[in-house]
Amino acid sequence: MKRIGIADTTFARYDMAAAAVDELNKQGGGFTIVRYTVPGIKDLPAACKILFDEQKCDIVMALGMVGRQPVDKDCALVADYGLQLVQANAGKHILGVMVHEDEADDDAGLATLFEKRTREHAINCYDLLFRPEGLRKRAGTGQREGFADAGPIRVK
Amino acid sequence: MKRIGIADTTFARYDMAAAAVDELNKQGGGFTIVRYTVPGIKDLPAACKILFDEQKCDIVMALGMVGRQPVDKDCALVADYGLQLVQANAGKHILGVMVHEDEADDDAGLATLFEKRTREHAINCYDLLFRPEGLRKRAGTGQREGFADAGPIRVK
Amino acid sequence: MKRIGIADTTFARYDMAAAAVDELNKQGGGFTIVRYTVPGIKDLPAACKILFDEQKCDIVMALGMVGRQPVDKDCALVADYGLQLVQANAGKHILGVMVHEDEADDDAGLATLFEKRTREHAINCYDLLFRPEGLRKRAGTGQREGFADAGPIRVK
Amino acid sequence: MKRIGIADTTFARYDMAAAAVDELNKQGGGFTIVRYTVPGIKDLPAACKILFDEQKCDIVMALGMVGRQPVDKDCALVADYGLQLVQANAGKHILGVMVHEDEADDDAGLATLFEKRTREHAINCYDLLFRPEGLRKRAGTGQREGFADAGPIRVK
Amino acid sequence: MKRIGIADTTFARYDMAAAAVDELNKQGGGFTIVRYTVPGIKDLPAACKILFDEQKCDIVMALGMVGRQPVDKDCALVADYGLQLVQANAGKHILGVMVHEDEADDDAGLATLFEKRTREHAINCYDLLFRPEGLRKRAGTGQREGFADAGPIRVK
Repeated sequence: MKRIGIADTTFARYDMAAAAVDELNKQGGGFTIVRYTVPGIKDLPAACKILFDEQKCDIVMALGMVGRQPVDKDCALVADYGLQLVQANAGKHILGVMVHEDEADDDAGLATLFEKRTREHAINCYDLLFRPEGLRKRAGTGQREGFADAGPIRVK
Repeated sequence: MKRIGIADTTFARYDMAAAAVDELNKQGGGFTIVRYTVPGIKDLPAACKILFDEQKCDIVMALGMVGRQPVDKDCALVADYGLQLVQANAGKHILGVMVHEDEADDDAGLATLFEKRTREHAINCYDLLFRPEGLRKRAGTGQREGFADAGPIRVK
Repeated sequence: MKRIGIADTTFARYDMAAAAVDELNKQGGGFTIVRYTVPGIKDLPAACKILFDEQKCDIVMALGMVGRQPVDKDCALVADYGLQLVQANAGKHILGVMVHEDEADDDAGLATLFEKRTREHAINCYDLLFRPEGLRKRAGTGQREGFADAGPIRVK
Repeated sequence: MKRIGIADTTFARYDMAAAAVDELNKQGGGFTIVRYTVPGIKDLPAACKILFDEQKCDIVMALGMVGRQPVDKDCALVADYGLQLVQANAGKHILGVMVHEDEADDDAGLATLFEKRTREHAINCYDLLFRPEGLRKRAGTGQREGFADAGPIRVK
Repeated sequence: MKRIGIADTTFARYDMAAAAVDELNKQGGGFTIVRYTVPGIKDLPAACKILFDEQKCDIVMALGMVGRQPVDKDCALVADYGLQLVQANAGKHILGVMVHEDEADDDAGLATLFEKRTREHAINCYDLLFRPEGLRKRAGTGQREGFADAGPIRVK
């Protein structure tokens, strides 16, 4: 039984974890989910480390929202750095799902983006654990999570 | 008995630790506080490491102020990087509470921000140790520390 | 028998791995290839760590594409940071092959760049494992992968 | 007997170590100083690591000068990153004393800044080792090293 | 017998290693040189780690050239970060010798810079191993490698 950690924040303005859990359950079985909520994205790396070490998770989804201000973009860089540190030490994946508040023009667009990106990364998460050959088949095909896929380069 | 470390600086222009200690005591008991004061924010990561390793702290609040100049913003990035390093190794949380001197227009506004942000993070600190289900309930609800909460996205 | 890991992404818009495998096979024998596909470039470092630790790879090629937007350039920096972390710990090479979407004016130019840069790095990969004296001979000669070599400085 | 390491550079244009040693000796006894000189600030982190591991230092002062050019500012960021790495691993403090060549208008002003900042950090160094309660008392009081203290925020 | 590692690249447009080896030999004896050539500067950190761990080097000179484009400057930052990681872990020095292609106006000026900077750092390398008191004497005297020394600040 694989253990999937889901780390999220009170800072985010959308319940990303609910979407992640729902989409994972649609993929199949064979896993348990472990939740962990922290205040903000800079707290996600330590949460992931705890999910790996204490909760024996095999993979973690780290869900967050990035604000519009320059200081928020710096936050995201620091958080990303922390997520790399934890992955490099653990030898396990952390799928970072970050939605920037300025990626959509209104709340409805933002909500759609939160749903889509989280769910598409939940599928990636399930694939990394159970269907790596599915990822292999999509190598180099321009997949995107959230917005439409870019698709492969057209070479005449 | 949990041990909460509070690392602060002589550089900051407000006694953030006093606010943190007061707010923690209002939340309940079950913990001891360990203080550690350093000159500036770039000294906070080593202080946190010492609080984890030598003082056996379970969690640390790292309190600091960031000046207005570009060099101060670089300082903050370096300090943040150090805090991620220490958390990634220790598998424990460091709640960074940083107030930027240019976040308010006058000293009164700055003092209010220092108080509010520190106290709200003290509640987060207590929650991470004793009331994680409280954080879980607030996941994705747009919480902010210092200024008013942003609230969740309104989806019609 | 050396083991060469090839980590690639579903984000990229070109099948870089196919070019890498083909070019490696043209160089000679003495190796096995291990494939690993992840969603995006920020997932490559963990993939490389897994290729080194679990798959006992001696060297890894990490293949990816970087988008045009500022957020994509930040992604690349974070991924590069992660690749350095993994190499510094493992004491083994990760040859990062990154193609920026804005390095060519059209899809045909981009496809050519993907092919050339990947194949030239595949030769570097083979050289690092089997023909280090070949690299030694080319030291300081202004080699480039993808576009034309710059060549050595002309000193009269 | 505590051991204080002093790492400095041939790049700097002022003998910062002489000021540090003199000021430390004025604070009291109970320590030995270990000197280590390297070419530039990017060599300071390895020097500090050697001072901790091989010379058994309890704390290190890392003294350097940062040039005016953009490439010099990048150097400082890299050096600072290295200093954080070494501190995070060692669990000991490195007091970084950096003077930027463009912080003063002429050589006399720069010399004064070199003297003051180095000496004030030497006092911080002694306090971290022997008088932590002194630092505690100055928490949140807006201390500066080099230029005049900013002082605490005035709250009516 | 000390072991000096020299890591260089095929990307650079000048044979920096030849200058380094020649200058080291002029300083005296007591060492063996170990060469290691990689494609580009982002491959230097892993090369240094291999030189320390597998080749038992006591110190390494990492020689590279940085191109003119913004992406090249990012490369340099990433490489520098990797070099700090390896030094912080190994507790040994890596003398980074980087020449930016835009530091000189023509090939002749660039060649002179390559020669001078590499040779002056080779002397630093020898000093760190065999003549640390020589570095101590030059502390704070404004030494530069490549261009003319800045000299100490003039204080009337």
